[in-house]
Amino acid sequence: MRQAGRYLPEYRRLRAKVDFEALTRTPELAAEVTLQPLRRFELDAAILFSDIMTPLQGMGVELEFEPGPVVREPIRTDAQIDALPELVAERDVPFVLQTIRLIRGNVPRGVPLIGFAGGPFTLLCYLVCGRPSKEFAAARSFLYAQPRSAERLLDRLADAMTVYLGAQAAAGAQALMLFESWAGLLAPREFQRFALRAVRRTMAGLRGTGVPLIYYVNQGSALMESVADLDVDVIGVDWRSPLGAVRRVLGAGKAVQGNLDPAALFAPPEELRRQAAAVLDEAGPTPGHIFNLGHGIWPETDPEAVARLVGYVHERTSVASAGGGSGAAP
Amino acid sequence: MRQAGRYLPEYRRLRAKVDFEALTRTPELAAEVTLQPLRRFELDAAILFSDIMTPLQGMGVELEFEPGPVVREPIRTDAQIDALPELVAERDVPFVLQTIRLIRGNVPRGVPLIGFAGGPFTLLCYLVCGRPSKEFAAARSFLYAQPRSAERLLDRLADAMTVYLGAQAAAGAQALMLFESWAGLLAPREFQRFALRAVRRTMAGLRGTGVPLIYYVNQGSALMESVADLDVDVIGVDWRSPLGAVRRVLGAGKAVQGNLDPAALFAPPEELRRQAAAVLDEAGPTPGHIFNLGHGIWPETDPEAVARLVGYVHERTSVASAGGGSGAAP
Repeated sequence: MRQAGRYLPEYRRLRAKVDFEALTRTPELAAEVTLQPLRRFELDAAILFSDIMTPLQGMGVELEFEPGPVVREPIRTDAQIDALPELVAERDVPFVLQTIRLIRGNVPRGVPLIGFAGGPFTLLCYLVCGRPSKEFAAARSFLYAQPRSAERLLDRLADAMTVYLGAQAAAGAQALMLFESWAGLLAPREFQRFALRAVRRTMAGLRGTGVPLIYYVNQGSALMESVADLDVDVIGVDWRSPLGAVRRVLGAGKAVQGNLDPAALFAPPEELRRQAAAVLDEAGPTPGHIFNLGHGIWPETDPEAVARLVGYVHERTSVASAGGGSGAAP
Repeated sequence: MRQAGRYLPEYRRLRAKVDFEALTRTPELAAEVTLQPLRRFELDAAILFSDIMTPLQGMGVELEFEPGPVVREPIRTDAQIDALPELVAERDVPFVLQTIRLIRGNVPRGVPLIGFAGGPFTLLCYLVCGRPSKEFAAARSFLYAQPRSAERLLDRLADAMTVYLGAQAAAGAQALMLFESWAGLLAPREFQRFALRAVRRTMAGLRGTGVPLIYYVNQGSALMESVADLDVDVIGVDWRSPLGAVRRVLGAGKAVQGNLDPAALFAPPEELRRQAAAVLDEAGPTPGHIFNLGHGIWPETDPEAVARLVGYVHERTSVASAGGGSGAAP
């Protein structure tokens, strides 16, 4: 969870010279931004730097970053949905695949690279509303007012994300993570009917890649029962869902990823250590926990606090589980 | 849940002539806005029209509505906290008490009036951040970086809300509702330490009023265990927490209020009826459910859909529970 590295001075120096979109579309720069935290901290995995909207731009959706994505023509009719072309990754987003190859050739300590895409429902939120908002009212009312159109759009997006993540795996990504940033807008019934149905479709198409599949469900405390039988290896959760309760609902077949509150990085060192310990205690002694923040790191975060956090996690997990348990991902 | 009536043409006509702050500070107008939905729909209760920040303005906090509240000088130091005066309702917010008296004298069908205030933690979010934001990062990091100052501020706010709601009851409010709009920003541990501790303080001071106490916990799926032993009569929940699960956690001693998704009002009539029925089914056949939306009604909502919804709820509950069960609050 990196929130595009804005907490790192080396990222801000780069960003002062290049706009956000160019960063995401230039393999050398996207690889550099992916690797920056790995050089600074002893992290156990890298995650691809990219934007959730990048594959949609590849499919011809016109948008600007202001700084959140603003879609020129929001998509709300079946005609617009049917006009969305299929994604052909090598043709539409070759720079992402090249970024992955560059990262794999340069990643410190040989740590694995996690590929990245947005959940179909989260993408629908941006496409239907046209711009980020607190409530995403237009997207949520779209589900109720035009449920068939919503399913039609979600099917398109689900298939595009299968192609996109499959191509990332083929290019070298060693795990694949689907981010459902706006899962928490939905009650369980609507989550199952719309968001989860689409995710099942995406994930079913990715099992053949052979790499671990991660589904991050933001604000998903009420949705854990719904994802318990989803065919993925890891469920990522935000800081509001205690990991112990999550693991009890998910059962032994799934690992969990998370979930320190990004705000905890503002605590004094001893309190930060206690907060990290509390997450590890909640996750329990068994393998199958990837230590992470529960949401994106804030731009105001002190990199020294991140360094301390990574140290605490390694200190605890190298003693407690001798390599089989928690790691730390950026 | 009304979101200040913006879905009603009669509210918008009034608002075109008077700014929001004047509406909240002029008893005749605030009473009029409170009563507008009661005249249009067969609702079973009224809720006071006011703003969450109104008592803080009374305590001398300078702010503007743009349209969200913007505090001129965010409060982050102990000196600022200690400088906050105690609230004296008759002196600082007499217009709120006068509004309540006017409503009580004019409310259609003699339905009860619910008084209203913001939860101490929700108020802290605005005071510390200075303006609304998606993450309320400054408020959340304040809890970790300056926990003692946070508790100090929360104590002040808790006591002010006791005074404020107590005065509302004395002026005629027949139930009191505390809105924790930003509960969902906190993990259970921080919710308990900060938000809930302050709410216990507020509510303990209100038991003597003899009126039912309601605590609305937005985005609180992971917080229901925490509030199960809070000494209130009703827990209000947003649309993401299935009422059946909520009632199982809360036990028989508490009623629940909620929780139709405001987006469901955009569904075609038959689907809206199914959605309302699903909420009633989840709440179960016993008394102790106040039917409501799970969050504020959206300005784009068709008043006709609201009328249909009120009709469905009355149709179902007059048959099923002969007056002992669900009602509909605005």
